[in-house]
Amino acid sequence: MSKFWSPLVSRLKPYLAGEQPKMANLVKLNTNENPYGPSPAVLDAIGRAATEDLRRYPDPSALALRQAIARRYGLETDQVFAGNGSDEVLAFAFAALLKHDAPLLYPDITYSFYPTYSLLYDIETVEIPLDAQFRIRPSDYRRACGAIILPNPNAPTGTGLPLAAIEEILKDHPDQPVIVDEAYIDFGGETAVPLIAAYDNLLVVQTFSKSRSLAGLRVGFAIGQRPLVEAIERVKDSFNSYPLDAIAQAAALAAINDEGWFELLPSQANFVFARHTEQSGEALARRLREQAVIVRHFARPRIADFLRITVGTPQECSRLIEALDAIL
Amino acid sequence: MSKFWSPLVSRLKPYLAGEQPKMANLVKLNTNENPYGPSPAVLDAIGRAATEDLRRYPDPSALALRQAIARRYGLETDQVFAGNGSDEVLAFAFAALLKHDAPLLYPDITYSFYPTYSLLYDIETVEIPLDAQFRIRPSDYRRACGAIILPNPNAPTGTGLPLAAIEEILKDHPDQPVIVDEAYIDFGGETAVPLIAAYDNLLVVQTFSKSRSLAGLRVGFAIGQRPLVEAIERVKDSFNSYPLDAIAQAAALAAINDEGWFELLPSQANFVFARHTEQSGEALARRLREQAVIVRHFARPRIADFLRITVGTPQECSRLIEALDAIL
Repeated sequence: MSKFWSPLVSRLKPYLAGEQPKMANLVKLNTNENPYGPSPAVLDAIGRAATEDLRRYPDPSALALRQAIARRYGLETDQVFAGNGSDEVLAFAFAALLKHDAPLLYPDITYSFYPTYSLLYDIETVEIPLDAQFRIRPSDYRRACGAIILPNPNAPTGTGLPLAAIEEILKDHPDQPVIVDEAYIDFGGETAVPLIAAYDNLLVVQTFSKSRSLAGLRVGFAIGQRPLVEAIERVKDSFNSYPLDAIAQAAALAAINDEGWFELLPSQANFVFARHTEQSGEALARRLREQAVIVRHFARPRIADFLRITVGTPQECSRLIEALDAIL
Repeated sequence: MSKFWSPLVSRLKPYLAGEQPKMANLVKLNTNENPYGPSPAVLDAIGRAATEDLRRYPDPSALALRQAIARRYGLETDQVFAGNGSDEVLAFAFAALLKHDAPLLYPDITYSFYPTYSLLYDIETVEIPLDAQFRIRPSDYRRACGAIILPNPNAPTGTGLPLAAIEEILKDHPDQPVIVDEAYIDFGGETAVPLIAAYDNLLVVQTFSKSRSLAGLRVGFAIGQRPLVEAIERVKDSFNSYPLDAIAQAAALAAINDEGWFELLPSQANFVFARHTEQSGEALARRLREQAVIVRHFARPRIADFLRITVGTPQECSRLIEALDAIL
């Protein structure tokens, strides 16, 4: 606390990102990064963009990148918003679309940034419990609300929803924005993008951090009908005219255009959510760490005994299994 | 307007960034970019950072960059915050430090993003008129308020304040945060950073976009005593864990470390604010544009007849003068 702080600051509960430790021989399975690198075309594009033109401001609207994303999904360019990682895109979307007179709904076990954004913007929320198998049930969302957000597949549970279930939620709430956060969709889920033409209340958010192997570059995007995208643009233009630097724009453009490299990525989910019947999640995470294997543990009700473990390379998976063998 | 918009969205008046047109043979003097490129060490650093490690998240705290900035200014690392351009740093600072029960003060003619941020966060403001010579007078700020922000040198006027005047404002307001926005300080002004040790209410904001020739990279920073910096960190960690990508961190680190290149930069102000006695600002800007010379015009009271013209290379200055000769 400080007398200089805005009242807001004391109220916040900042999100704690998965750590990025520097340890020798580390098996890092805690932040769902891709075990394989980005397309070589991305690295080439970065080299080409590293010129004295960096003295110029970047394109504030990231036009070429948005055109490429729109082309890939068969949409119009102005139905795409690109930002500084899907976390920033979500931050703008929370302000632009999720604050209303009625509460925002999201699962009780989900991406732990949602409660943080809600506190930041003072958004009233209701957490809808997952069922006993940790699944989202559309019927549980059939209640008065101002907006809905849910990840598909959900995190950290890894469970996915079929498109019919997403559509059921959209139909139940024709007057409320529904955001589907598809950070992990390319690993095996079914994207809701084809529903955009029929549902003016749907916004889909995706990221280059996972399936495109570019967590280090911070590029995310949102897709929806024009009024939803325009709302996000208006908040962005009240916050930072140029959220995406010139290098990130060039690199992401190369990534989206290299469909061949993308198709080669392993198409299974890139993390598992698991527990052991006899070891607490906290103890297991600590003992794995002693062997330089880092996984993600959430000290939260219902999931405190689970670990979220990124799927690494075959070598990294072997190191994990050996470490578990040694512990158990 | 759309039924899906949060009430906030309808209230916003988004900032209009200086345009980034693609015209042949363009003399672009409208956004105060540096006419000279960044340090070659920056381009090298970008090349070295373009590896498959981009699949990893960047350091969320930009530690190495903050250490280098702290070293340069003789401060502690935790007195430095680094963000995605000084626009983002300012956006966080407005939320964290400038919203109080009493109004925020800033000059009536100043960086036009300040009213935009204030609307975004619903901050009550009072604009303090510049004097007839377009100067900031510290005595005009001697009134009850919640916080103060002012650029030094001011923009778009280009007039600077001596350090004694900044110190007078700090002394008059020991219980209010005072932000000095030093985007243009390296072109000839006197930085307030040496006052930080003595004034716990001072936050200084700087950018890599102007004197470091890296507008395309989006890196800015804030310096102040720990409680002010912590407030900004808390808002950042409620908005986006990783605002600075890995490439931008590496490149900015190289820029701050290449003191030799920095010293070679022309040490005059990098823009002028001028009017013609017989031509309106709007007409002059339009006629310059017909000759592919782009300058910045603000259609606002008191300054509608002025043009803000970036100082370009000698060749660009000649093109400007020729174009003016042809018009006048």
